Amino acid sequence: MTPEDRRTPPAPNVLITGVTGIPEVRRGDNIADLIMGNFELQDFDVVVVTQKIVSKAEGRTVTIDTSAPLEPQLEAIILSESRRILRRRQGLFITETHSGYVCANAGIDQSNMPTGTIALLPKDPDRSARRIRDRIRAKASLQVGVIVSDTFGRTWRCGVSDVALGVAGVAAIVDLRGSRDASGRELTATQVALADELASAAELAKPKDGAIPAVVIRGISPSYFRESSVAGEIIRPYQEDLFR
Amino acid sequence: MTPEDRRTPPAPNVLITGVTGIPEVRRGDNIADLIMGNFELQDFDVVVVTQKIVSKAEGRTVTIDTSAPLEPQLEAIILSESRRILRRRQGLFITETHSGYVCANAGIDQSNMPTGTIALLPKDPDRSARRIRDRIRAKASLQVGVIVSDTFGRTWRCGVSDVALGVAGVAAIVDLRGSRDASGRELTATQVALADELASAAELAKPKDGAIPAVVIRGISPSYFRESSVAGEIIRPYQEDLFR
Repeated sequence: MTPEDRRTPPAPNVLITGVTGIPEVRRGDNIADLIMGNFELQDFDVVVVTQKIVSKAEGRTVTIDTSAPLEPQLEAIILSESRRILRRRQGLFITETHSGYVCANAGIDQSNMPTGTIALLPKDPDRSARRIRDRIRAKASLQVGVIVSDTFGRTWRCGVSDVALGVAGVAAIVDLRGSRDASGRELTATQVALADELASAAELAKPKDGAIPAVVIRGISPSYFRESSVAGEIIRPYQEDLFR
Repeated sequence: MTPEDRRTPPAPNVLITGVTGIPEVRRGDNIADLIMGNFELQDFDVVVVTQKIVSKAEGRTVTIDTSAPLEPQLEAIILSESRRILRRRQGLFITETHSGYVCANAGIDQSNMPTGTIALLPKDPDRSARRIRDRIRAKASLQVGVIVSDTFGRTWRCGVSDVALGVAGVAAIVDLRGSRDASGRELTATQVALADELASAAELAKPKDGAIPAVVIRGISPSYFRESSVAGEIIRPYQEDLFR
């Protein structure tokens, strides 16, 4: 290592690539196979898959009666998918899902779905992520992370961004407590929502028309990969929450 | 274009690179020059700069009396930097800053700062971003986006993630209302918090020790670049907010 190398370590580089060529997903499809058939994965890749194709593959969809009024049907589905309603304004419900996520309308929606069909969130998004990860590992002997992502609104801030619903193989939260900054002071903002940042980053390579339902992120530190980590770690415990 | 090309458009690719070699920033330093001196920018790059070096360059720091108790001094600074206190628990304040951002402790903190020095948020982060953008444009004739980022906690979800405090040259929010999904249905989640997603993505190439205070994101659609767009667009109007 020359002195020059010591002064300037190599720039960290992260590459985000959309996986093209995935056909319309149907119930029973194997998402890991669809991704591996269209993209050459490597060790320490993180695969970000939209909730929508996971729900389709798992049959987490509901058919509604298009001849009857839509709103009461949607409301019934939202209530059955929620364990608590936090706020309600016109057609918008802010709910806590059975998995513990706080989001609009219990995460159900019609976009990128056939007419008359509503997508629900996967029953157990961490299990969905783990299944995809396990299949990739079994088939290709690769250590990868898998994130099932969805698009959520936020308090205080306009617009939506993608977050992690389910996680396997990569840290949901990176805990840096005890580590120090460049001047030796202990860091304060120390629990980094890595899985959410990965989900947001993936969105940059994914047009909203649903044509690219999976994205691969390459260049994440191998130290962030975990045998077991679940998106459930991201859910803020009720008693620690200042706004519920 | 062959039929094959039409079936599979090129994979969208986004590259995130940390800018190494930026020295400790001091009051009066020109951040655009520091970045351009260490990285060869191109048209349609987005430069994400941490709030911390912007505050240092702008002299937005406060010296505290290290022989006196810390907490009352911090509290006084937090109150003077806030226009409203939303919640308070032990040493933690959730405040609305004078710029309208809701965050912990009015965004002030000591990490990556010399002992006895507190960094405040820039007075007008959009103006800070615009100054950097204008300087890059004047010096290199490049069309770039600039984001001043900070690390915020979130309601409902554990961990922190990076968000946009100031924006110039690139859309803070991409408005897709009226556009359609692959099956022709109008999209529902249509206002994408692009600037926040860019800030989150940048975090992936930026260790928390502060050694890399700027990141370049390449591969964002040229259609997302704007002459004027401000992070203020991200602030949810008080009357639309369901949780304040």
